[in-house]
Amino acid sequence: MERLFTLNETRAAALGAGILGTGGGGNTYIGQTWLEKELRERGTACRIIDAEDVPDDALFCCAGTMGAPTVSNEKLLRGDEFVVGVRALEEHLKAPITGVLISEIGGSNGLKALIAGLQLDVPVVDGDPMGRAFPELQMDTFAIGGVSLSPFALVDSHGNVVIMDHVDSPLRAESYARALTIEMGGSAALLMPVVTGREVKAHLIRGTLSLAEKLGRAVLTARVDGQDPAETVAALGNGRVLFRGKIVDIERRTVQGFARGRMQLTGFGAGADQMEIVFQNENLIAWHNGKIVCTVPDLICVLSLDDGEPIGTESLRYGLRVAVIGMPAAKELKTPTALESVGPAAFGYPEITYEPMPGDLL
Amino acid sequence: MERLFTLNETRAAALGAGILGTGGGGNTYIGQTWLEKELRERGTACRIIDAEDVPDDALFCCAGTMGAPTVSNEKLLRGDEFVVGVRALEEHLKAPITGVLISEIGGSNGLKALIAGLQLDVPVVDGDPMGRAFPELQMDTFAIGGVSLSPFALVDSHGNVVIMDHVDSPLRAESYARALTIEMGGSAALLMPVVTGREVKAHLIRGTLSLAEKLGRAVLTARVDGQDPAETVAALGNGRVLFRGKIVDIERRTVQGFARGRMQLTGFGAGADQMEIVFQNENLIAWHNGKIVCTVPDLICVLSLDDGEPIGTESLRYGLRVAVIGMPAAKELKTPTALESVGPAAFGYPEITYEPMPGDLL
Repeated sequence: MERLFTLNETRAAALGAGILGTGGGGNTYIGQTWLEKELRERGTACRIIDAEDVPDDALFCCAGTMGAPTVSNEKLLRGDEFVVGVRALEEHLKAPITGVLISEIGGSNGLKALIAGLQLDVPVVDGDPMGRAFPELQMDTFAIGGVSLSPFALVDSHGNVVIMDHVDSPLRAESYARALTIEMGGSAALLMPVVTGREVKAHLIRGTLSLAEKLGRAVLTARVDGQDPAETVAALGNGRVLFRGKIVDIERRTVQGFARGRMQLTGFGAGADQMEIVFQNENLIAWHNGKIVCTVPDLICVLSLDDGEPIGTESLRYGLRVAVIGMPAAKELKTPTALESVGPAAFGYPEITYEPMPGDLL
Repeated sequence: MERLFTLNETRAAALGAGILGTGGGGNTYIGQTWLEKELRERGTACRIIDAEDVPDDALFCCAGTMGAPTVSNEKLLRGDEFVVGVRALEEHLKAPITGVLISEIGGSNGLKALIAGLQLDVPVVDGDPMGRAFPELQMDTFAIGGVSLSPFALVDSHGNVVIMDHVDSPLRAESYARALTIEMGGSAALLMPVVTGREVKAHLIRGTLSLAEKLGRAVLTARVDGQDPAETVAALGNGRVLFRGKIVDIERRTVQGFARGRMQLTGFGAGADQMEIVFQNENLIAWHNGKIVCTVPDLICVLSLDDGEPIGTESLRYGLRVAVIGMPAAKELKTPTALESVGPAAFGYPEITYEPMPGDLL
């Protein structure tokens, strides 16, 4: 079933993608503004299709941005990188790419595929291979499912194109692409992976664009209706509000191509209710009064307390009043194989065991 | 005219390439050993052709190793990288590569193209685009002459292939390939640039393989005849012996993918005759008692005093007794355009003016 994504959907989708970004994926304001510009200038809508409807042998490609949100927030793309990259891959593969996939539904990357779809005049599949945002390339369901990530393309804002013709592992794809992205100024367009319709059906997490829109619309409605946006989001995402308080300390460095750091939050009451969250582009682990209450791959979302606006790790600052929401990851991320790539140990916390929140994201 | 390069030529060519390496290009012992293995196992010879004899529209490709000699000295290639890279480029370009070019005649890289030629069963052109070794990609006569360096391929020792499909400048080629080479472990096979026979004729420095062999044979003969190898080399290279002494201080770091540092030498006499040489993979500038006596692009070659064996910057050590020879660069490196890429300022010494040694290398 094909549906149209128009200017009516951009605000909600951006808001929802911001929530699912769990702090990363890049600032959704930038993605939303760019997407709206493309929709307006082209006078057309994005065509959204379901994963079940893609032809088995057609080729699809994820389109997104690689890099630290602290960088992509200031260093914008030139605008034609997705087209340049897809055309280079088509030339290299001698085969057409007939549709675009969302690389990660979280953050600005959740909207980039829609922009690419408009520019290339091809449909975008409703789904993504993360069901959130993650900082590294090997953390997607294609890589986890054993699909080769090569060939893939990186494009910088000068139109330079690098094709990774063959990489022997997803970790290699990550390390080589990261080194290049840093050299490209800390942010680059990434067209990866190229997959068949059959692989889309086998590995894509379904309906995450629709979920982002639903989350965003619910927050917008809650604002008007005077409902609590945090509770609304938690309920829709099958999660719960973990904490309410304000940021009293924030430590953040852009290092090795990532925004890394930790934040300290203090509750509003008289007691010393505390939360600490560490992040690598995305929020990774949350401690409530010293006890772990949520870890990757489950989602830790920091929203502005009053209006439910998601706050990226690049925008955290002292004094912000926030709600922290925990939501269970998509079930595709919880298999033993998946957890090797997206569990706490994969982020440098081998001593922490993943204890899933009840339920699934969708 | 085609001639054959056999096991009889390897020792002389390696020795001569070591001299022309001016400290860089990688240890020739490794290149020589590998080349001899290939010649023995294949029971065949390398076919060497002159630049004038290449067909105008045929494609040629330089084959060499990128990285710091301190690394390539210990981290050897797997062995099939040139074939893997050339095949990937042929597939990408949809056209055959019919001959191999030497990427730089200096050091081990002076022999790598011969290995690639044997493995691919194609001829090697007698010449190179540097007439010595240089540390960076933009410092070759193709780049200086405005020939695009892309597409080109980097191959690591796991068979991973990266194709730089489009780069907008030679400096970009250098910075992206350097970042990848570092991530690849500090050393990688480089297939770059792909050029037509017409471009070979327009830009290649002719006869540098023959020069290397001639230099090497002269040193070998001098040893037997009891001649002074340093004087022999200097005479053949149209240069002069700048200094004789021993290394009394050596400072070397492997940084940003290069072997960088400086050496201090003291003369043998009672007076405090001193020389200082700075290097970035290759020797860059020599000061004799505080006065500059030779700078890039002219060649500063450090040879073992007794036997004329060239000493790479990765092998410099306290107490070595050496002769330092200065030789004029090939004339192609002395145009105003070329000097922008290979003069002292290009290496971070804008205050130093290049004062050419008399004559040309060949």
